[in-house]
Amino acid sequence: MTTNRQVVLTSRPIGIPQAEHFDIVSSPLPSVGPGEVLVRHDYLSVDPAMRGWVNTAANYSEPVAIGAVMRSFAAGTVLESRHEGHAVGDRVMGLLGWQEFSVTSGDAIIRTVPDDGLPLSLSLGVLGLNGVTAWFGVTDILRRQPGDTVVVSTAAGAVGSAAGQIAKAMGCRTVGIAGGPVKTGICADEFGFDAAVDYRSPTFEQDLRAACDGGVDGYFDNTSGRVSDAVMPLLNTRASVLVCGTASVTSWDPVPTGPRIERVLLTKRARIEGILAFDYEHRFDEATERLAALIASNRLHYREQISEGLEEAPGAIAGLYAGENYGKRIIQLAH
Amino acid sequence: MTTNRQVVLTSRPIGIPQAEHFDIVSSPLPSVGPGEVLVRHDYLSVDPAMRGWVNTAANYSEPVAIGAVMRSFAAGTVLESRHEGHAVGDRVMGLLGWQEFSVTSGDAIIRTVPDDGLPLSLSLGVLGLNGVTAWFGVTDILRRQPGDTVVVSTAAGAVGSAAGQIAKAMGCRTVGIAGGPVKTGICADEFGFDAAVDYRSPTFEQDLRAACDGGVDGYFDNTSGRVSDAVMPLLNTRASVLVCGTASVTSWDPVPTGPRIERVLLTKRARIEGILAFDYEHRFDEATERLAALIASNRLHYREQISEGLEEAPGAIAGLYAGENYGKRIIQLAH
Repeated sequence: MTTNRQVVLTSRPIGIPQAEHFDIVSSPLPSVGPGEVLVRHDYLSVDPAMRGWVNTAANYSEPVAIGAVMRSFAAGTVLESRHEGHAVGDRVMGLLGWQEFSVTSGDAIIRTVPDDGLPLSLSLGVLGLNGVTAWFGVTDILRRQPGDTVVVSTAAGAVGSAAGQIAKAMGCRTVGIAGGPVKTGICADEFGFDAAVDYRSPTFEQDLRAACDGGVDGYFDNTSGRVSDAVMPLLNTRASVLVCGTASVTSWDPVPTGPRIERVLLTKRARIEGILAFDYEHRFDEATERLAALIASNRLHYREQISEGLEEAPGAIAGLYAGENYGKRIIQLAH
Repeated sequence: MTTNRQVVLTSRPIGIPQAEHFDIVSSPLPSVGPGEVLVRHDYLSVDPAMRGWVNTAANYSEPVAIGAVMRSFAAGTVLESRHEGHAVGDRVMGLLGWQEFSVTSGDAIIRTVPDDGLPLSLSLGVLGLNGVTAWFGVTDILRRQPGDTVVVSTAAGAVGSAAGQIAKAMGCRTVGIAGGPVKTGICADEFGFDAAVDYRSPTFEQDLRAACDGGVDGYFDNTSGRVSDAVMPLLNTRASVLVCGTASVTSWDPVPTGPRIERVLLTKRARIEGILAFDYEHRFDEATERLAALIASNRLHYREQISEGLEEAPGAIAGLYAGENYGKRIIQLAH
């Protein structure tokens, strides 16, 4: 426990970061200073947003520096604490990075995870940023009513699957968009979407139109690109669209073009809005309590795809964008 | 007064309607039935939205039929009434069409215009749909705070000039975008914009960036197209954009392409929303009272460009899109 293996960024990717943009290095673990904690990382998160964190294009956070540990969410256990808010043995989650351990300011920890009998890994997924994003995206931004039709893209993914089930719990009819028959099957069978449409099918546009017979009232957009282009013409009057991610756009430099949406916004008096879950940081507990209750009442299902070892990390973001994952992608570290 | 001259739509334009798409015909005036009124049209309105009313593309209202009187706002005087809500001599405004007279259901009248000493023509502009659109667009959709920077496109126009002055009255810093030095001069000198930028200038993008030094918090968009493309990258966190019109797009069939905006919406958590003033029909009086008060206190200036004779109507929409107008375009009819 005196050395710490870390995944560092070695070059700046254009577009989607690949394994070759990272290296695994060992470094000595610093001692714990006043106000700091030592955390053993039990689970590392892999999220689509991490692509943006290593690009230099305008984003909501500074890009990860070359040579720095890759920024990521991680969940683990406090081994040593000089911060009054954290005790040894606490289960914590924060932006702790792709590494085996971290010595960090106790204030950098986002949540202390209650020991509620649920696996700690859920704090990186359905009870973490993914679930919280879905919760506030649906309840605070889409704001739909029972009977409305809500479309979700990347509907088999960690955020999309939660979003669809939250909308369903609110009484909406849900239509999931996912890539390939395995994922659309998961959408329908595990996540309770009323319809699931395969965007890889040559009849995607027609299939979507048929699945959204009365039009679209809410659209939880994780993709942008041609998937969204197919949804926009189906919007109903006063529809709401949440931009939560842009998974289908491989590069924003230069900004790609697409069909202009001003006309549909105008004639339908529709609304589009972006979300960043961090803006809801003061309300995380509110969301995680509701999400845990939905899990307990069997209305919120989740999938995790957990693989073991720090070596899994460097190629994992590219894997997300290649659509290789079935469920929340997590890397477990043995200690 | 037994015949009525009318401007009828004779063919369906692709894009912007020109004089050649209309004809002027005479027809006998029908007698006034139960529940109906006879209105003498004193002023006809010319509005950018009329382009959409003659196109078959999806819109918020049915397209004007070939052979039908051109739909338009008009203001006039009740000459005969068999509707209990309207008395002879009342000043009224409604979707009464490009014609000299109308016999219509009294329920079709949008507003009875109080005789407040202000010209009746204002009920088609700053105290009509234009002013009401600007009012709710700024107060209900943009929802900005004192010190925020608000950009307005077609800032010298009937809606844009009102929007800028309403935002200014709310304590915002206002930047107007208009075409050519005459219009930018009007923006700065008559409508009180803190800065005015000429979109026809080769240095437009730089000029706009310089005028919006601290970024853009609110954007009242009447144009779409390349003007909007220059504004979007300047949006601040939690910016709001109102889509009120798409003056710079000559045809929506096929839908033109432009830079995708999902990324800026996501990273800035910005919001874009469309408006249709009719959605606020139940609140018209609320807006017109406030607007009249702003006029009275010299904080809301307006311009009218009034020409005389029904013959002016057919080419007037094209004139709007050619940027020929300085102020609200109105046609006055002598009787």
